[in-house]
Amino acid sequence: MSDQAFVTLATNDNYAKGAMVLGQSLRNHNTTRKLVALVGPHVAEPSRDALCSIFDEVLVVDVMDSGDVVHLALMKRPDLGVTITKLHCWTLTHYSKCVFMDADTLVLSNIDELFEREELSAAPDPGWPDCFNSGVFVFRPSKEMHDKLLKFCGEHGSFDGGDQGVLNSFFNTWATADISKHLPFIYNLSSIAIYSYLPAFKQYGHDAKVVHFLGKVKPWNYSYDTQKGEVKGHSLSHDSSQMHPDYLLMWWQLYTKSVLPLLQHTYRDTPF
Amino acid sequence: MSDQAFVTLATNDNYAKGAMVLGQSLRNHNTTRKLVALVGPHVAEPSRDALCSIFDEVLVVDVMDSGDVVHLALMKRPDLGVTITKLHCWTLTHYSKCVFMDADTLVLSNIDELFEREELSAAPDPGWPDCFNSGVFVFRPSKEMHDKLLKFCGEHGSFDGGDQGVLNSFFNTWATADISKHLPFIYNLSSIAIYSYLPAFKQYGHDAKVVHFLGKVKPWNYSYDTQKGEVKGHSLSHDSSQMHPDYLLMWWQLYTKSVLPLLQHTYRDTPF
Ligand SMILES: O=c1ccn([C@@H]2O[C@H](COP(=O)(O)OP(=O)(O)O)[C@@H](O)[C@H]2O)c(=O)[nH]1
Ligand SMILES: O=c1ccn([C@@H]2O[C@H](COP(=O)(O)OP(=O)(O)O)[C@@H](O)[C@H]2O)c(=O)[nH]1
Ligand SMILES: [Mn+2]
Ligand SMILES: [Mn+2]
Repeated sequence: MSDQAFVTLATNDNYAKGAMVLGQSLRNHNTTRKLVALVGPHVAEPSRDALCSIFDEVLVVDVMDSGDVVHLALMKRPDLGVTITKLHCWTLTHYSKCVFMDADTLVLSNIDELFEREELSAAPDPGWPDCFNSGVFVFRPSKEMHDKLLKFCGEHGSFDGGDQGVLNSFFNTWATADISKHLPFIYNLSSIAIYSYLPAFKQYGHDAKVVHFLGKVKPWNYSYDTQKGEVKGHSLSHDSSQMHPDYLLMWWQLYTKSVLPLLQHTYRDTPF
Repeated sequence: MSDQAFVTLATNDNYAKGAMVLGQSLRNHNTTRKLVALVGPHVAEPSRDALCSIFDEVLVVDVMDSGDVVHLALMKRPDLGVTITKLHCWTLTHYSKCVFMDADTLVLSNIDELFEREELSAAPDPGWPDCFNSGVFVFRPSKEMHDKLLKFCGEHGSFDGGDQGVLNSFFNTWATADISKHLPFIYNLSSIAIYSYLPAFKQYGHDAKVVHFLGKVKPWNYSYDTQKGEVKGHSLSHDSSQMHPDYLLMWWQLYTKSVLPLLQHTYRDTPF
């Protein structure tokens, strides 16, 4: 399936670490699709090199170098820089269908079946469930759609200041039109949901396919004690650790085992 | 439309206050449907009388007096008493279609259009959005369905200990089968959602039709300063009060204006 791809985005070296873990988790679960990382111009060379060894394509996206539509949108809404970079995924027209995944997601099993879905398919957001969460979505690259989205972005802005607001305003029939465009929540399980309705997590959580570390604090903001195999500063109480698998620990184990060696190689043993 | 009804439930005098406010809010928005309150045997006579002056029917439901299926279910799951009482709404077969509403909901506009929906229609739960919230749902009374639900209840119990767990396990294709059974979230807006994704609330909240005071603390657990027109012990900061209407205040205003006089009458001026 060389015309279908998983796509992620990293505009800095921290999100690049997330992208590496995500890419590696897709590889570990034997995806048959291509892996594409869009990187901003501020991602350092060694990070790009490490990404190159996991992803099939690493494309540097400099929105400043983009065409007129992008410029116009950026001039009207300078605050939407990262969002406009994310929308760039629609320009990947050498693929017929793609699944975008935030760099703060982690794949727990093969999810290639997502390519059976149509644009725009996404899972509900646990905060306001008539909105979809834009951390995982199925789309069809198209120059026309990219132009439309940027135009919309420039004219209407984003109600939440990010891509989720823009995409929900643009694809505004998601909640009411077509159930097949509702991805099951287990394809974009955010840790917030675990605590807000724990009995449901206990009932359905064991089928989780994608975990999303949504919110301010990301896995790479913690540190890890390699000796003890413990995430530092993460106070998972005994009680709650019995109740659900520690996704944060899984992220760090993958990072330590598969990503750190790559980075140590590309940065020539500079410590992290 | 005398064969369609809004139905609520109160097993004690506190929830009965909620039911009165709900019923009055439906009346204030000129519903053309019947109003039915199911009350448990522990609801005091004066509360029932006050309910009678708002609702078309007030039915005392004593699950202990119910038939064999109920007994069997209760014997297997004695913890599910209130849940089994709620399921009793399916026995209202003199109505062709009903909308169940929790006693802790408040209606902000006419919602009679809900009767165009089929069983089982409900809005997503903000905690785990592939579950529906069972605070507002459309159903068709049916003796057969009632038996099936009780049987299910006795055999499988409830993953969350309440009716929401039972109903979601029973109507287990809600998330994937039919978008028309997804009520818009504004028909069951819980205050939790306001804070978890405030930009979405600012964008979509002004269309709210039903507010749900979901969770441990209910409107009747606060008190109200009639002189100042303020809810006591409710620390709505200046900032957040500018951002969203104070639903709690609306509840208390309705209670003070329309419900308290009824209760003062039926309790013959016993102070509350
Ligand atoms: O400074 C940033 C912020 C975001 N992103 C990308 O945009 C996505 C969405 O942002 P984030 O995950 O931080 O938002 P959340 O999911 O917490 O709402 C990230 O996963 C990255 O792929 C990025 O590359 N650089
Ligand atoms: O002791 C109780 C508990 C619940 N209920 C009824 O069951 C509904 C669901 O319970 P609740 O609203 O407390 O649950 P929540 O919506 O907070 O999950 C209530 O609104 C009432 O109609 C009741 O009558 N007595
Ligand atoms: Mn994210
Ligand atoms: Mn409730």
